[in-house]
Amino acid sequence: MNKWKLISSKKALESKWFTVRQDTVELPNGKVLEDYFVWECADSCMIVPVTKEMDTILIRQYKHGRGEIITEFPAGYADPNEDIINTAARELEEETGYKSDKLTILGRLTQNPTKQTGDIYVILAENAVETGERAHEETEDIELITVPLRKVLPMIQSGEIRTTTAAAATLLALTHLGLIAIES
Amino acid sequence: MNKWKLISSKKALESKWFTVRQDTVELPNGKVLEDYFVWECADSCMIVPVTKEMDTILIRQYKHGRGEIITEFPAGYADPNEDIINTAARELEEETGYKSDKLTILGRLTQNPTKQTGDIYVILAENAVETGERAHEETEDIELITVPLRKVLPMIQSGEIRTTTAAAATLLALTHLGLIAIES
Repeated sequence: MNKWKLISSKKALESKWFTVRQDTVELPNGKVLEDYFVWECADSCMIVPVTKEMDTILIRQYKHGRGEIITEFPAGYADPNEDIINTAARELEEETGYKSDKLTILGRLTQNPTKQTGDIYVILAENAVETGERAHEETEDIELITVPLRKVLPMIQSGEIRTTTAAAATLLALTHLGLIAIES
Repeated sequence: MNKWKLISSKKALESKWFTVRQDTVELPNGKVLEDYFVWECADSCMIVPVTKEMDTILIRQYKHGRGEIITEFPAGYADPNEDIINTAARELEEETGYKSDKLTILGRLTQNPTKQTGDIYVILAENAVETGERAHEETEDIELITVPLRKVLPMIQSGEIRTTTAAAATLLALTHLGLIAIES
């Protein structure tokens, strides 16, 4: 199986907040497409905080893309050249006021590999403790919900949590912590 | 918690394949943002095919957004006003040559609610049988892999499958079928 050949590339939309590239590509069968658009998206992470009591911290927040209040784990984009573990520690504290001394990368995922660059790392934040140092950005009006980690699975099944990344992060976290297993 | 107020909206990028909207919005704190970009994305679905033998069908395919070969379940965008169950049946047959007589919506998810419209439905396709009627699009050079459904979880843990939607679909399918459960 072959990758497509990149013939040329230009910016179709360029701004601080959203950049789209327009590629001309040649497919393995020789066909040339002149209008293949790709959203150039920074790396990001989603953090699954877990306290010593095996609670997790969810955030509820208005998301303007979807136009609704969304419940999921804290998450954020990496600054240029930022180590993703630092991103995770920074976003966790900014959004929830919690810190963790045990941050573990559980996966390096992709949200839409057809039309989007960038990876989203799932990072488990164990021994999470509250510091009270929340300092979220001005676009962020955040409500925190503390729930037992194992209650997140029924929240996904009911649709109360419905982002693909939060569901993926839940699968990786519950499996890593031995809280779910394949039935034999 | 309040939604943002939409003041005005215009197209920042408009094409058959990729449309981005630029909104001027007022936040609950009164702050006005003039450059909030949203990718206007159609609804789509990801299908988890399951045969009577509890095998599933994965597809391997070059994805130009991420620039790599990606392994995941069959998926595709809905045509305008298309019932999502019809989309699922159509994409399943086009991409894999399989049909199912039992299609069930397991979830209505969102990939990036911050910057993207559109839902992605996770649809379980039970009793999947091969018909040989594959008819995929010219941009699609697809390799099929048949694996036991329960082997998909270790493939996600190892990073062999790494899309957020495939991981979310796996969580919903394994839970729905009673193949994983919270350890007590």
